[in-house]
Amino acid sequence: MNHGFFIVLEGPEGSGKSSLWPALGEKLRGAGHAPVMVRDPGGTPAADALRHELLHADRPWTPEQELLYYVTARADLVGQIIRPALLAGKIVLSDRYDLSTMAYQASGRGLPLPMVSWVNSAATGGLAPDLTLILDLPTEVGLARQLAAGKVRDRLDRESTEFHRRAAARYREERGPGVVHLDATLPPDALAEAAWAAILAARPALAPAGVR
Amino acid sequence: MNHGFFIVLEGPEGSGKSSLWPALGEKLRGAGHAPVMVRDPGGTPAADALRHELLHADRPWTPEQELLYYVTARADLVGQIIRPALLAGKIVLSDRYDLSTMAYQASGRGLPLPMVSWVNSAATGGLAPDLTLILDLPTEVGLARQLAAGKVRDRLDRESTEFHRRAAARYREERGPGVVHLDATLPPDALAEAAWAAILAARPALAPAGVR
Repeated sequence: MNHGFFIVLEGPEGSGKSSLWPALGEKLRGAGHAPVMVRDPGGTPAADALRHELLHADRPWTPEQELLYYVTARADLVGQIIRPALLAGKIVLSDRYDLSTMAYQASGRGLPLPMVSWVNSAATGGLAPDLTLILDLPTEVGLARQLAAGKVRDRLDRESTEFHRRAAARYREERGPGVVHLDATLPPDALAEAAWAAILAARPALAPAGVR
Repeated sequence: MNHGFFIVLEGPEGSGKSSLWPALGEKLRGAGHAPVMVRDPGGTPAADALRHELLHADRPWTPEQELLYYVTARADLVGQIIRPALLAGKIVLSDRYDLSTMAYQASGRGLPLPMVSWVNSAATGGLAPDLTLILDLPTEVGLARQLAAGKVRDRLDRESTEFHRRAAARYREERGPGVVHLDATLPPDALAEAAWAAILAARPALAPAGVR
């Protein structure tokens, strides 16, 4: 059913994903495209409300509840935005998607894999990215970057570091069609060039007219 | 942790649940209480947004996606409203709760029981009602009532009738502590009296002063 092109950025905290996302949007627009830019979770009234709760609700959270909020927000983003855009032939560029759930909720939190896989597939209805760009980064480098940026608090303790290490390890081992690993220790411009090259390698028709 | 009293109304379409809910609220207020009245799904910004999608979004729905929307809406209602109210010692009266998911998504839609049970428990964090009032009604009576009320369209075809029959059968077989079955063929006033009697039998201290 997918006639557009679905690109997903994935990677651990501090991997530069948040800077790469708009940079690739610029490159796509510079090549004459009009990408649909989404951040998962978010992008619909329901997903934004769920994201707000996840980030701000001061109540005890179980890992299972976090999982339900993330996947249901994704189901709504897929149903309302991503699937219609792809059916209309558009390019979709998403900051995170279902691999984040495998990295953080399955590997990171240790929730049972069959359950996480089932709800993950249920949420997306099996809609998979055409290209997944994974930003590989040693956990220590990512945490050091966040520390330098003032993003790490004291509460991000030893246990949290292990949580991030398990998630990063899950990212590193991901393999499959349409999965490309990038070295996130590269400077931002070089990383964006490498990501753009990976996109053009996967879908040469996206190159700007004249350089195809 | 539950210091309040949590009452849930359950039953198939046409069983009179929607009339009983405010009637019992009146009886509780008449006895000097201030019940927290909730309808599941709904009651929070996220749950209302998810409910709106479930009822109005014109797109292909899978049973799995419906399940995620229902249980995540419930998780938010529990986290934001029900659990804090019970912790504050309040009476909560909910129109539907997790048994609806077992009746409609597991028995009705035929989704795998282990998955439905897992996400259902994940959503509520194991918070169970103190009292579940189940309105038992033959499926044909419920559908005939809805037809008379102009609520049934042609699209409610043979398959949908079977869906409702399976859900109603699941309700009828529910047993357990705090589960009370009521005869929903009773007239509304008599049904409300029977429900009120069941509530006072379960928690005599709720009776109005002077009749304890």
